[in-house]
Amino acid sequence: MEIYFDNAATTRLGKAAAEIADRVAREDYGNPSSLHLAGVRAEAAVRTAAEQIAKTLKAEPAELIFTSGGTESDNLAILGTARSRKGYGRHLITSAVEHPAVLEAMRFLEEQDFSVTVLPVDTAGKIALSDLEAAVRKDTILVSLMYVNNEIGTIQPVAAAAELVHRLNPDCYFHTDAVQAYGKFEIYPKRLGIDLLSASSHKIAGPKGVGFLYKNRRVSLKPVSFGGGQQGGLRSGTLNAPGIAGMGEAAREAYSDFPAKRERLLVIKNRILAAALEIPGVSANSAPGMDSAPQILSLSVEGVRAEVLLHALEAEGIFVSSGSACASNHPGISATLRGIGLPKQLLDATIRLSFSAENTEAEAERFSEVFRRLVPELRKFRR
Amino acid sequence: MEIYFDNAATTRLGKAAAEIADRVAREDYGNPSSLHLAGVRAEAAVRTAAEQIAKTLKAEPAELIFTSGGTESDNLAILGTARSRKGYGRHLITSAVEHPAVLEAMRFLEEQDFSVTVLPVDTAGKIALSDLEAAVRKDTILVSLMYVNNEIGTIQPVAAAAELVHRLNPDCYFHTDAVQAYGKFEIYPKRLGIDLLSASSHKIAGPKGVGFLYKNRRVSLKPVSFGGGQQGGLRSGTLNAPGIAGMGEAAREAYSDFPAKRERLLVIKNRILAAALEIPGVSANSAPGMDSAPQILSLSVEGVRAEVLLHALEAEGIFVSSGSACASNHPGISATLRGIGLPKQLLDATIRLSFSAENTEAEAERFSEVFRRLVPELRKFRR
Repeated sequence: MEIYFDNAATTRLGKAAAEIADRVAREDYGNPSSLHLAGVRAEAAVRTAAEQIAKTLKAEPAELIFTSGGTESDNLAILGTARSRKGYGRHLITSAVEHPAVLEAMRFLEEQDFSVTVLPVDTAGKIALSDLEAAVRKDTILVSLMYVNNEIGTIQPVAAAAELVHRLNPDCYFHTDAVQAYGKFEIYPKRLGIDLLSASSHKIAGPKGVGFLYKNRRVSLKPVSFGGGQQGGLRSGTLNAPGIAGMGEAAREAYSDFPAKRERLLVIKNRILAAALEIPGVSANSAPGMDSAPQILSLSVEGVRAEVLLHALEAEGIFVSSGSACASNHPGISATLRGIGLPKQLLDATIRLSFSAENTEAEAERFSEVFRRLVPELRKFRR
Repeated sequence: MEIYFDNAATTRLGKAAAEIADRVAREDYGNPSSLHLAGVRAEAAVRTAAEQIAKTLKAEPAELIFTSGGTESDNLAILGTARSRKGYGRHLITSAVEHPAVLEAMRFLEEQDFSVTVLPVDTAGKIALSDLEAAVRKDTILVSLMYVNNEIGTIQPVAAAAELVHRLNPDCYFHTDAVQAYGKFEIYPKRLGIDLLSASSHKIAGPKGVGFLYKNRRVSLKPVSFGGGQQGGLRSGTLNAPGIAGMGEAAREAYSDFPAKRERLLVIKNRILAAALEIPGVSANSAPGMDSAPQILSLSVEGVRAEVLLHALEAEGIFVSSGSACASNHPGISATLRGIGLPKQLLDATIRLSFSAENTEAEAERFSEVFRRLVPELRKFRR
């Protein structure tokens, strides 16, 4: 059996989500914008999903914008704020360890005469609130800070950061890229002061090609793509009703029996972490337990190239990631690993394990055994 | 049984496409950017789909960019050209009867100091080549002309227009929104001089939430969304491998046994058209036979409001559209119907029937009977 420990790259589609997406595709096949029954049924499927997701966020269904995934959600939050708020200011703040969907969108804005402050992080990958405090200005229109880092699992102090930002500048929006956090953390944007929150379906065992942006009703965005005016004009394009319905079910499932699921992730992470640290020259870039995300574990292995280790594990039927799969074209470059000041010789010797509720303790045991055996074997081949 | 005559709004997912999307979701569930086998398998599924689609276009797989649908494809073509070519010029040309995904993207560019010439159309919905000739300038960077109109089925003289544009200005790109044409017409972009072509999966019985943009290799676009750099940096975001695989299969199927499928559409259209025109006060906005698209039929019914007719047909289990479903919020406003100069009292009295290869002659018969009965009945209720 394959052991899939790359759930932060993408997950296998869950059974219930697959069934609902399939049912909607077959039965509720209309265009939700159509006035006849086939359209009305598709619209109802979308509404059900919106309610399911809104419930997990303690938000309103009308506060959700359906997108094609995390990248589009991040882009809409950042570029949409820039478009709507540029009359108020042209300054944005983010961190050095964000996903490229945030960092590259910010870079694009810099070309358009916006200015961006990129906060550094400590060796755990966290920003300092004092740095954030010093960065917020009168003309700051958006702070974007990821909830959970995709490469090492660092949990940013999102609630404290949002509170600070709104205290210093009540007109500034606070966005969080929660792509790796949604489904693994109970996140209530209104309580936390989050104005905009990005999430992706395929990271929580939902269908690929769909995601959402939570937008607090007080927030005013302008669209960044243009067309038929669906979703209040903020995101044109025929609604992907089957995908959205599948995502709704995946969201419901992620938060049902939630404490037990999270505990399972934690047990898997801690077990592998303990076994890995017994091997000389193996270090962890993720904090233990709940000091970082329970589903992500970054390990550096002195003297073994990540790609070699990845393929050796693959030969044993175990799938992990070298760095992040989000930028396949630059596998060697990781903003996060550089951001936390990882020694140069380990940048290329780091793998990421990421777990889902489908993974088991037996898989953790098997991984630990294989890892313990492979590391010394592979070191023989080092140059 | 339901009769679904709203296939230009969206189609029901086809069986083979559904099966392949489902298989990829279950078995090839990795991220195509991942280096391990689960990723490699997903990448192979995407590559197969690219080959299937490229074959239908006589193009190269590398000339395809996968998107979330027709709207994103149109936006990327238009805004991506504007970004990459603004150093050469800031003038674009389109027609008055384009889909909002084109017209609204153009309108956005007008706000950014681009200028746009909107060509008028004749009563059949066609542009005049002489108007296009007069409009092309040295600083024209893009001409966008839809292949088949989504409301009345007009076929634009795309080949002649592309030839003219390239003769007058070899540096100008030619884009066609082929969302309603792809799968119904044999379109070979290289032969026709089409540089950019938009298509959508859910209009050809493929999964929703996915589409593609064909981009000739000589064409240089800049991305309009930003992230992990997938697809050569032109369209970031995890590839929706199951959706793309389903679209590939739908494309293959649309073009297999193609002449017979097209003949069937034509028979259905002609049969309904003939029956409808026998009813006093019913007129067609679509040209007969292959003088407009075989799958679209726009009918105006004097003295009956479209919405009333739509719901009366719905009560008989027949689903049609009033105008276009692409802009649900403005059902009464149709750029196309105004563009062809339809009398004001008919703007609100027009329905669109659109067929797929799933529809049958028996359905055409049943529609004709019901229509013949309903129109006089509904006229009794007119104000």
